Amino acid sequence: MAPDGNGGRAQKSVADEVLNKLKDILGPKGWSQDADTLAPLLVDTRGYYHGACALLARPETTEQVAAIMKVCHEAGVPVVPQGGNTSRVGSATPDESGGTILLSLARMNTVREVDPVDYTMTVEAGCVLKDLQDAAEAKDRLFPLSLGAEGSCMIGGNIASNAGGINVLRYGNTRDLVLGLEVVLPNGEIWNGLRRLRKDNTGYDLKQWFIGSEGTLGIVTAAVLKLFPLPKERATALCAIRDLDACLDLLARARAASGDALSSFELLAGITLDFAYQHVDSAKRAMEGSYDWNVLFEFSGLEPGHRMNDALETMLEKAFEDGVVIDAVIAQSEQQRADIWFLREAVVEAQAAEGASIKHDVSVPVSKVPEFINRSNEALHDFMEGIRPYPFGHVGDGNIHYNVTQPAGMDADAYMAAAPEIHDIVHGITADLNGSISAEHGIGQLKREELKRYKTKLELDLMRQLKSMLDPQGLMNPGKVLDI
Amino acid sequence: MAPDGNGGRAQKSVADEVLNKLKDILGPKGWSQDADTLAPLLVDTRGYYHGACALLARPETTEQVAAIMKVCHEAGVPVVPQGGNTSRVGSATPDESGGTILLSLARMNTVREVDPVDYTMTVEAGCVLKDLQDAAEAKDRLFPLSLGAEGSCMIGGNIASNAGGINVLRYGNTRDLVLGLEVVLPNGEIWNGLRRLRKDNTGYDLKQWFIGSEGTLGIVTAAVLKLFPLPKERATALCAIRDLDACLDLLARARAASGDALSSFELLAGITLDFAYQHVDSAKRAMEGSYDWNVLFEFSGLEPGHRMNDALETMLEKAFEDGVVIDAVIAQSEQQRADIWFLREAVVEAQAAEGASIKHDVSVPVSKVPEFINRSNEALHDFMEGIRPYPFGHVGDGNIHYNVTQPAGMDADAYMAAAPEIHDIVHGITADLNGSISAEHGIGQLKREELKRYKTKLELDLMRQLKSMLDPQGLMNPGKVLDI
Repeated sequence: MAPDGNGGRAQKSVADEVLNKLKDILGPKGWSQDADTLAPLLVDTRGYYHGACALLARPETTEQVAAIMKVCHEAGVPVVPQGGNTSRVGSATPDESGGTILLSLARMNTVREVDPVDYTMTVEAGCVLKDLQDAAEAKDRLFPLSLGAEGSCMIGGNIASNAGGINVLRYGNTRDLVLGLEVVLPNGEIWNGLRRLRKDNTGYDLKQWFIGSEGTLGIVTAAVLKLFPLPKERATALCAIRDLDACLDLLARARAASGDALSSFELLAGITLDFAYQHVDSAKRAMEGSYDWNVLFEFSGLEPGHRMNDALETMLEKAFEDGVVIDAVIAQSEQQRADIWFLREAVVEAQAAEGASIKHDVSVPVSKVPEFINRSNEALHDFMEGIRPYPFGHVGDGNIHYNVTQPAGMDADAYMAAAPEIHDIVHGITADLNGSISAEHGIGQLKREELKRYKTKLELDLMRQLKSMLDPQGLMNPGKVLDI
Repeated sequence: MAPDGNGGRAQKSVADEVLNKLKDILGPKGWSQDADTLAPLLVDTRGYYHGACALLARPETTEQVAAIMKVCHEAGVPVVPQGGNTSRVGSATPDESGGTILLSLARMNTVREVDPVDYTMTVEAGCVLKDLQDAAEAKDRLFPLSLGAEGSCMIGGNIASNAGGINVLRYGNTRDLVLGLEVVLPNGEIWNGLRRLRKDNTGYDLKQWFIGSEGTLGIVTAAVLKLFPLPKERATALCAIRDLDACLDLLARARAASGDALSSFELLAGITLDFAYQHVDSAKRAMEGSYDWNVLFEFSGLEPGHRMNDALETMLEKAFEDGVVIDAVIAQSEQQRADIWFLREAVVEAQAAEGASIKHDVSVPVSKVPEFINRSNEALHDFMEGIRPYPFGHVGDGNIHYNVTQPAGMDADAYMAAAPEIHDIVHGITADLNGSISAEHGIGQLKREELKRYKTKLELDLMRQLKSMLDPQGLMNPGKVLDI
């Protein structure tokens, strides 16, 4: 299934002398070579890639990470860093050679400080995202990064992949939430950039190099993150809209009516809700009818009360009068809010029940979303009869998970064989609209070859130059993002 | 007066053959060697640095910039890019050798597009900041970057210096406002990164390298900027607070009461308002009394009406009851609002009337602002009798313009001779609090030597490596930020 795996590489091994040095650094609890322990860490979350490693290193401190990197740097041994292993693009799976050290950050999971006055939090890379949300909330603050894998993904991986999620519209991507970083470089040097400043113009902003670099330039070991006031009221609605174009109209209305406190704005094509109701037991029907285009959105207010709810109701009434919205439900309780948000997750889960799915994580300028979806749908229907486009996602950021389900009854393998052509169609339209072929998931292994087609030679050259500058031996997460 | 000027460098010249090539590229209107035309461009805004150049290039297109850079790259001629020439650290002033091309972006001042649906604006580097604010407002959108020099500074320079200003608290630094960049590299290649995407995780984020690099890595020629909904109501207050610590309490109250729509939060020490009233004719007294510590702050609401005003009033009443605020005035008209904001500018202007001033642009974690000011005041009073600390600025971001006025009646030159020791005291306390010695003004020439003391060797090495990678001959704005 791997679209461009690393299979076929020669088996490699790591000298016992090197492994023994690493084991000494890590201590008895800090490493494993046990097959059962390793197994779940050597396959990616989508099951595309199956890797191998010579040793699982589980360091407990930044100094241990640095010592490991020094040994590997001297011995020329590649290292693959891993957080919660939830990459959608195979970023954290080693190749099959077995000549790699898999370095898990999972034991470095201390929240070093939550400072409600500074609105900052200093955390280690192995902290699970959900735990950080909770740690902030305990101090009446919000850490806004939120995404499907939040129960298992780790902040180091979120930073390395510049994760997006459902609150980007208001709070930005992970890049926007990072004030400071601690990074172990490929040669084992520790860069301590754990500053918690809102403004710092003392030279080049080194932390930007590492955010979104998918572990190919160094290992993020700790970070200072921005916090925000904790919302005290959330007003949530699911509504059906007149047509796809109406989503832009509704977005502008929602942004204005909320006082720019619109935190999420998610598009759900009719087919995605239909599948969710059909295939996910706990998915509760929110509106009686079925509609082609639906939007799930939320206002977050900082005062307790129902001001946001009132604003949302007033806005929807007007949008209904104007024919922009044709049906709607507003959450009347925390339970109903959870039920509506569960639909967003159910839409993801439901895909599998209808067969094979070819996935895209694209972005275009927000104003081009309807054009992107309309053109892609049309081109795909021309390409294959019965094909079922399944678009949903963060339309407020121009980011669509444009997945494509196989025709009913078709053989899944036969369908997947068409993946390259389907990628070409969808990514071609994306590129034509000056969009991105990876809005929030990154490149990893999955899109590495495709990246070469959509970046200019200059861009690839500049990326390679930075990689070679920091990691001349190509030992940091090799074969991810770039083919070095 | 130049703390570390480039005087004493040998005179250099640029070969006529090279100059003629450049003149051909630029056409008759595109260059000058006229002394009167050049004079104002060869001195920085603070009068610290006086430079020279072989030619002023005024290209009209990105292609011309690229062609100039190619010629200079081949001939080994250094280039200093310049926008509105408002740098506070001598970033845009060439050295005195005369062997440099001064490249002004002033003629590249087209607003290519304002897109209210995408909330983006595509602009050329030579656009004056104020013109961009106006262009956005004409489409009912806000471009929030706002600073003292906005009537003359240019967006290319704002980007190159990652400018801050009075709205960072809500909208971020310039870095946070840039979605895409077009950059001419030192070798004359054009990187077209003019994407207008909210999410794009396709490899390393190249634009981050250039933002805040002060023209040492390439020349920003155009950018895609983020816009926001235009505020429809602004509630503005100047108030006196109990003591310096109370500013943190008031900040938290203001953030919560406004629904995080607090756009500015500026501290004004009593001495700064006193000087403003005394020395600036059009500065109108806002409160009857004189108080040691004052805060100017503003809520920005998206709905017309007085909701923000009501929220501000309620918040201030409670803060008054609780003894946090001891006097206050809320702007009752647009005129009164302008008068209050004028005080913020008058405070800057008034300094000169009281003699020489030694300036600092530091940031510390927000919670450390009172400690920073108290410790610095105390240390300076110990150092020199009668010295007059003059702190003001963006306390909501932890950024204080901690200027220090000479003792009344002292000889200005004698006072300025103590600048190195005074910098040591203030920057030493800043560093001790994990702060930054340049929060928003950058490094330029002024702080280049000092930077070496406050960055680690590793940080300086990494910066030098990137510089050498992109500009191996050291021709881009040489001697700025780094001594290469």
